[in-house]
Amino acid sequence: MDLYSSYINRLIAELSVLPGIGNKTAQRLAFHMINMPKESVENIARAMVEARNNVKYCKCCYTLTDNEICPICANEARDHKTIMVIENTRDLNAYEKTGKYNGVYHVLHGAINPSMGIGPNEIRLKELISRLHDDVNEVIIATNSSIEGETTAMYISKLIKPTGVKVTRIASGVPVGGELEYIDEVTLSRALDARVEL
Amino acid sequence: MDLYSSYINRLIAELSVLPGIGNKTAQRLAFHMINMPKESVENIARAMVEARNNVKYCKCCYTLTDNEICPICANEARDHKTIMVIENTRDLNAYEKTGKYNGVYHVLHGAINPSMGIGPNEIRLKELISRLHDDVNEVIIATNSSIEGETTAMYISKLIKPTGVKVTRIASGVPVGGELEYIDEVTLSRALDARVEL
Repeated sequence: MDLYSSYINRLIAELSVLPGIGNKTAQRLAFHMINMPKESVENIARAMVEARNNVKYCKCCYTLTDNEICPICANEARDHKTIMVIENTRDLNAYEKTGKYNGVYHVLHGAINPSMGIGPNEIRLKELISRLHDDVNEVIIATNSSIEGETTAMYISKLIKPTGVKVTRIASGVPVGGELEYIDEVTLSRALDARVEL
Repeated sequence: MDLYSSYINRLIAELSVLPGIGNKTAQRLAFHMINMPKESVENIARAMVEARNNVKYCKCCYTLTDNEICPICANEARDHKTIMVIENTRDLNAYEKTGKYNGVYHVLHGAINPSMGIGPNEIRLKELISRLHDDVNEVIIATNSSIEGETTAMYISKLIKPTGVKVTRIASGVPVGGELEYIDEVTLSRALDARVEL
């Protein structure tokens, strides 16, 4: 690589640090940036540094936000007695898009994954428990339907049940619009187990 | 998206400008950056701006370099009478890796592509012609084996031939180690046309 300019080499090395960006992609991005207008490159660079330095965790639900308290936790019109537990901020956005949920959230920032060294203390679980005061009616566990997500859901449910707060789990089954032949067996057998009378 | 922080939204928008980075990838990168050490994010940002502002085109062959003249053009030991014409700096690197070429290069920065509005004046073709003085023995055209690359090769060869300089084109055929059954028909028929006696 030492035939390229040292600046390009350094840029390729820096970009390769990012997830999903291998050496080839980093090269492509680097050469693209060299040909972009100066201001565009500066805008991307500034957006990166400013986001890194200014984004905070909401003091209540731990989602990423510009303020101490996120707009959802600060909203009096939301039902603060229902807490949906999710793995990350993107999941929050996915649920908000449905427009069907009026409660508040709790973002774990991960899921229990012993093989990766992520135990209950590595995610925001203590912070969830400390939110469970008398006013909370229900905790809806909406972690992913993966092994880690299910493990986390089981763990949380065991932790919360003794406190008397109602704990629920979002349903798993066949996605709406999904064609049966393309759906994996685990999902199909769960959909069968969870069948409802019509 | 307005539930995320405005900083994250801006970062996602900026990253989506890059080629091959859609909204989902931009989100993944943005959330990753938020969790990276401050200095790592600053290093990437700095590498981007510095590369954009400091990389130059070699005054001779137009490859990207830190100096006025690239290390290859500045190297007295290279054969300056043989010029290999390539589409971009990455191709130069690919040929240098072979260790088999001792001539110099000329980087076109593109190929003729009328449907994209890229004509002969949009690539560094004038600059190539102006290098063709008495001393040049051979111009090897090593543009890609795509329609654009072939068009460019034909165009250049027609332009140079009247000057009396020898013009050659790199061979196309079956890649070494390639299994015939997976190779497209055009490549196969070219390999057949260009067969050599053993």
